[in-house]
Amino acid sequence: MLEPFKHILQTQRIVLASGSPRRKEVLNNIGLNFEVVPSTYEENLDPANYPNPADFVIDTAAHKVEEVFERLNKDPVKPNFIIGADTVVVFENEIYGKPKSEEHAFEMLRKFCGKSQFVYTGIVLKTQRDTVKFFEKSEVEFGELTDEMIKAYVNTGEPMDKAGGYGIQSIGGTLVKSVRGDYFNIVGFPVYHFCKQLVDLLQKNQND
Amino acid sequence: MLEPFKHILQTQRIVLASGSPRRKEVLNNIGLNFEVVPSTYEENLDPANYPNPADFVIDTAAHKVEEVFERLNKDPVKPNFIIGADTVVVFENEIYGKPKSEEHAFEMLRKFCGKSQFVYTGIVLKTQRDTVKFFEKSEVEFGELTDEMIKAYVNTGEPMDKAGGYGIQSIGGTLVKSVRGDYFNIVGFPVYHFCKQLVDLLQKNQND
Repeated sequence: MLEPFKHILQTQRIVLASGSPRRKEVLNNIGLNFEVVPSTYEENLDPANYPNPADFVIDTAAHKVEEVFERLNKDPVKPNFIIGADTVVVFENEIYGKPKSEEHAFEMLRKFCGKSQFVYTGIVLKTQRDTVKFFEKSEVEFGELTDEMIKAYVNTGEPMDKAGGYGIQSIGGTLVKSVRGDYFNIVGFPVYHFCKQLVDLLQKNQND
Repeated sequence: MLEPFKHILQTQRIVLASGSPRRKEVLNNIGLNFEVVPSTYEENLDPANYPNPADFVIDTAAHKVEEVFERLNKDPVKPNFIIGADTVVVFENEIYGKPKSEEHAFEMLRKFCGKSQFVYTGIVLKTQRDTVKFFEKSEVEFGELTDEMIKAYVNTGEPMDKAGGYGIQSIGGTLVKSVRGDYFNIVGFPVYHFCKQLVDLLQKNQND
């Protein structure tokens, strides 16, 4: 979707304000040129203060973006686009972030078995003039798994740095029976919705 | 899902009878150890001779597996598992394979815009004693795209070697609004269903 705008995008300083290697990979795969400047914002917002998970992930993403924006705006070449993202898993009205221990990962994954959870990613896309905020929601249905399978998966070490305790793009893909929505949102970055918004901003700038 | 069986799988000769780099990558990502021996079977079956796309992809996959099975069974160490796969895209009751030209790719992708197509992959898993055949069906909803976007995507060269003319795991991911089912089936290999069947065969062998 971005190919017709390649000549403009190549002149822009685009910054991903996230240290997630999965988000970086997703954006690399679609051919975007960007730099990675992880935010130093301490993620300490309380989901209980938000009416729904969407508002929570958007607000966390916004704080990440603002911190990086303030920092990089002191550079000789200011950024044109700063991208922030935050992802959580919601299961039976409870928010699940990264597991705190291997036991915690096992518990989480065991609850998910044979059922659906929902992955929410909040995205904030900031330019020098505009700030666009949105979220994407995708459904993930886990298969029926034995305790032995879950334990062996936790032992791979894969769950520990991932919201919900699994990585769908790696070994965790074998646990997932079905998805519904944007797959890349489950990896941590909603590609389609993001490209749409980016194209809208580029067209708006062209018309100004 | 396969981790509890790692010690058995490591002793097996597992062969992927497909030259598709996407299938190889999907199987690598889930940690399976296998070798790639592309089938030399000439894919010349006529979909019109089959009552539905599922039977067609399963039969094509079966022919690929049989050719490789015959060939490798002359080796000193016979294969334990041979995996065959075939993928097509079905849109409004018509089967779409790989595009024949860039114009063909453009036409296909333009038809898909704003609508859903269905990806069918047939899998045949053959051991020295058993042959398991199944298929997986996933839905892909394309976004609304301009002709300029489609043309620019075709110009990347990505569509030409892919059923349906797009690669969801790369730049083609920006064209897809939503999926439903096993995402990896759209890439060309239905991970969840395959792992289930492989585990069943391993357990059957253990109990014999």
